[in-house]
Amino acid sequence: MRPLALPPLAVTLGDPDGIGPEIAAKAWAELNSQPHLAFALVCPGEPPKLDVPTVEVEWSGVVEQFASALPVVPRREPDLSSTQQAARSIATATAAVLDGHASAVVTNPISKERLYADGFAHPGHTEFLGELTLTHPAPYPRGPVMMLAVRDELRVALVSIHESLASVVANLTPTRVENAARTLHGALVQDFGIAEPRIAMAGLNPHAGEGGALGREEIEILNPVAARLRADGINITDAKPADTLFHAEARATYDAVLAQYHDQGLIPVKSLDFHSGVNITLGLPIIRTSPDHGTAFDIVGKNLASATSLIEAIRYARRLANNRTA
Amino acid sequence: MRPLALPPLAVTLGDPDGIGPEIAAKAWAELNSQPHLAFALVCPGEPPKLDVPTVEVEWSGVVEQFASALPVVPRREPDLSSTQQAARSIATATAAVLDGHASAVVTNPISKERLYADGFAHPGHTEFLGELTLTHPAPYPRGPVMMLAVRDELRVALVSIHESLASVVANLTPTRVENAARTLHGALVQDFGIAEPRIAMAGLNPHAGEGGALGREEIEILNPVAARLRADGINITDAKPADTLFHAEARATYDAVLAQYHDQGLIPVKSLDFHSGVNITLGLPIIRTSPDHGTAFDIVGKNLASATSLIEAIRYARRLANNRTA
Repeated sequence: MRPLALPPLAVTLGDPDGIGPEIAAKAWAELNSQPHLAFALVCPGEPPKLDVPTVEVEWSGVVEQFASALPVVPRREPDLSSTQQAARSIATATAAVLDGHASAVVTNPISKERLYADGFAHPGHTEFLGELTLTHPAPYPRGPVMMLAVRDELRVALVSIHESLASVVANLTPTRVENAARTLHGALVQDFGIAEPRIAMAGLNPHAGEGGALGREEIEILNPVAARLRADGINITDAKPADTLFHAEARATYDAVLAQYHDQGLIPVKSLDFHSGVNITLGLPIIRTSPDHGTAFDIVGKNLASATSLIEAIRYARRLANNRTA
Repeated sequence: MRPLALPPLAVTLGDPDGIGPEIAAKAWAELNSQPHLAFALVCPGEPPKLDVPTVEVEWSGVVEQFASALPVVPRREPDLSSTQQAARSIATATAAVLDGHASAVVTNPISKERLYADGFAHPGHTEFLGELTLTHPAPYPRGPVMMLAVRDELRVALVSIHESLASVVANLTPTRVENAARTLHGALVQDFGIAEPRIAMAGLNPHAGEGGALGREEIEILNPVAARLRADGINITDAKPADTLFHAEARATYDAVLAQYHDQGLIPVKSLDFHSGVNITLGLPIIRTSPDHGTAFDIVGKNLASATSLIEAIRYARRLANNRTA
């Protein structure tokens, strides 16, 4: 074992038939010389067969490198289905962090459709992690909130995530916006190590409603919440026009954006750098990051998958874990 | 007079108290050595006083360079208010194009608030131009449609523009989407000179509705319109997730995006290049482009205004005019 300031990171398997195993192997090849980025792939059941000729890494090496620290489920369980492997990996990795054997969870992509078909009862990673950590206190207990980050160039947290645009409009409430803003602020302080974070709030409507002419949610919901938060010492702007919020000069004025809906936040993230985006769940008692892409079943086994986002997720997880425990 | 293949471009004054005159002078300084980009500033009434020490250009030169070709309103009309100057400039420039004295109109920014206060009866440039050209046939008579372009890197046309997000959702109809798509297609062929343009349509909901789980507008409205258009020989995709539609690899697969609402289209445009965006009105009998910014009253007279967007608008106007008359 190499000496580490903190326990290693726990990377989940994801769907074993997706690109998770391939990008984990590629990330391992790139990172294993850097002790602070050491990770274990939590791989219950039969390990997936890899066809990644350019990556010289043995699965046994990846899995067993930290076997003494991580409570890895015995590998030879051929009866586990791929969805059971995926779910077991998440649960094991989470337990490892809660028990102090790992610093943070980095999740590889899962297939919700396949999990649902196999009886998985949670909408996604975030809710499953919420359930697994339910009895543990979160550091800022109003989450979970989804954040997307592109290195230190752009961080966007979302008030709403996976719902129709009609639902976004209908369900925008002061409570929802305030909770998301407080979770974001808590995470920026505790996990990102920013003492006095500056939050820019995006408006819901074009031109942030232009004084009410293009929608009144800014006047009736968003700006009053911002005023209340500022009175509590949180540095957050009134609602700003979203289209002028994401270029380089604008990004220099804040540490994170609070976006009102999925595409408003993810369009700039994925346009800015399609391959380096990291998904970070704020408001959990554990640090959890994830690459910002799916299982990519269409390119599995072709050695085409890019590990860039996973590597960024690993780097972010280490930094956040270090900050939270500092 | 220099020899020109086509008449010069007509650049409007915009609000004379905004940055229009300053950026017009800067654009003139940069472009006046290139005959094909020659333009006249259509400047009725008393010309604005400039304080642009670094730009060595005489207003009389700008205005009178093409005085013999352009029916410039006599300059000495001190009784014209600034809003009257702005409106007169638009009308004069438009008449110049319709009469064949100018190739296209490039509009400097106006202040809608000031125009409204002075009795201006049109919502904005686009509608005013529609009114001025009403008796003239448009080449593809279903517009006007607003397009934003960043050089040849990204072109986005909008189904809806300046309305609340609630209105966007409530008023999405097949007719509206189809008309915008047909106007976009006609413009790409006739004005952009693209024989068989590829149009990517953005979904309304996150993940383009994910098969109906996150909204049904894609299934019920957008995809049936796309199928109908394809049956008519128009190359347009079904609705695609907007967040993965704007990075470089995705942009290589289409000539333009049809976005459903303002921020969906303008966030990627302004994030990609904040200073080079050009606003192009499709579906008018004249070519009209515009810089993608406002009057910027706060920096007037400080020599801080960037002419980049106006210069790009002038370049685009020339290309579009050449294509349409080719």
